[in-house]
Amino acid sequence: MTSPTPPANTGQLATLLDELRRFVAEREWAQFHDPKNLSMAVASEAGELVALLRWVRNDDADAFVRQPENHARLRAEVADVAISLLLLCDRAAIDLQKAILDKLEVNRRNYPAESTRGRAERPERHRP
Amino acid sequence: MTSPTPPANTGQLATLLDELRRFVAEREWAQFHDPKNLSMAVASEAGELVALLRWVRNDDADAFVRQPENHARLRAEVADVAISLLLLCDRAAIDLQKAILDKLEVNRRNYPAESTRGRAERPERHRP
Amino acid sequence: MTSPTPPANTGQLATLLDELRRFVAEREWAQFHDPKNLSMAVASEAGELVALLRWVRNDDADAFVRQPENHARLRAEVADVAISLLLLCDRAAIDLQKAILDKLEVNRRNYPAESTRGRAERPERHRP
Amino acid sequence: MTSPTPPANTGQLATLLDELRRFVAEREWAQFHDPKNLSMAVASEAGELVALLRWVRNDDADAFVRQPENHARLRAEVADVAISLLLLCDRAAIDLQKAILDKLEVNRRNYPAESTRGRAERPERHRP
Repeated sequence: MTSPTPPANTGQLATLLDELRRFVAEREWAQFHDPKNLSMAVASEAGELVALLRWVRNDDADAFVRQPENHARLRAEVADVAISLLLLCDRAAIDLQKAILDKLEVNRRNYPAESTRGRAERPERHRP
Repeated sequence: MTSPTPPANTGQLATLLDELRRFVAEREWAQFHDPKNLSMAVASEAGELVALLRWVRNDDADAFVRQPENHARLRAEVADVAISLLLLCDRAAIDLQKAILDKLEVNRRNYPAESTRGRAERPERHRP
Repeated sequence: MTSPTPPANTGQLATLLDELRRFVAEREWAQFHDPKNLSMAVASEAGELVALLRWVRNDDADAFVRQPENHARLRAEVADVAISLLLLCDRAAIDLQKAILDKLEVNRRNYPAESTRGRAERPERHRP
Repeated sequence: MTSPTPPANTGQLATLLDELRRFVAEREWAQFHDPKNLSMAVASEAGELVALLRWVRNDDADAFVRQPENHARLRAEVADVAISLLLLCDRAAIDLQKAILDKLEVNRRNYPAESTRGRAERPERHRP
């Protein structure tokens, strides 16, 4: 499976995408999946993710997500975000692996290890 | 830490995670990355994703994201969401590939192809 | 347009809405402000709100927002969410004051004081 | 309570806040309502708002929210966002009316009517 295909398109992400495409095709949902709607799906699922943890204190968050019932819910929410995101990448012709590696390269420049060590992200990253 | 890893943990996602872990370790950012904070990071990055497309009409969305400048921005935003999500999975000991496949199985049951074909997701999925 | 308005529409919210309507009209932005786009604007601004607080620990959050610079940023983000929300209410013919009072009534039934006292919101409120 | 207070604190928003404070006090929920958690509540409720409209096309959005059942759901979601936002303002000592008017003033400078007329928000508003 990995030999003749171009390296970037093989592997886990391509396999997952194949599954997702089949799921969507069987339901004829591609008509709803333009990039705008899918970005809303990502935001909606991200909202469910924060809903799960909004009343949990930082100090309790690791223990909270280790509890089996919470772990299962977090796992499902995380999967929902990822599914929407992969569908968006597919629709917009984005290779997610490359996108992540490129963004990490940008982040390495924007957040030099020496000057940011032990400090949360620079606040000026967001809206001036 | 990852030495005797099962086969499922090798491949693209594990490779990406290795890169992310190194990036985080070099900056000593793990102290900020409890599951609560990372869920907020996902929501924050998802907010930037919808910001990009909020004034673009459905009819124009596909063309919009094909435009090189917009494609580059969408690619960067999608990567930001994915990075936060992968860090969250890592912190919460979630195998994202398995989580997606399991969730897809749940979705197959909840949205049978026959009854949902051509119809957007059942509205009762969200808050009664 | 607002001449024979019932008393409920006067007061702070109506005054704010008048200002917002003028701002929008001067820029001919109503064409972008359908309920879908405005819901995305709300989500986008909410994302900026969580961005501001994502690396701040619960224990430090009150002190953080009292710091003048942070207070000013929070104030601006909160205003952005409120502006998008008021524009959405205006477009969808929702009286926000009444909507809040009605929802509070629903919440009083769903979260009886006796059974929920001192406990965070019932988890089953969100996606089963 | 309303007599000697400055005019800005009377009116609809103060009345709503009184109701919300009573609701929270009866449930002893103030302990959960630090600014960080409340910002997550806002994002979570905003996520439910976009969920409602994510599969609705721009062209159908106005008609969609006029339908009684959808109107009722939108009304409830909008109220949830507003309630979280008002509680956040209360906790962080933000006068929401003033915050909105001040932000509108900033927006007037940043988006001059002449140069922005008929064009969606300047893209450089978000992440450089």
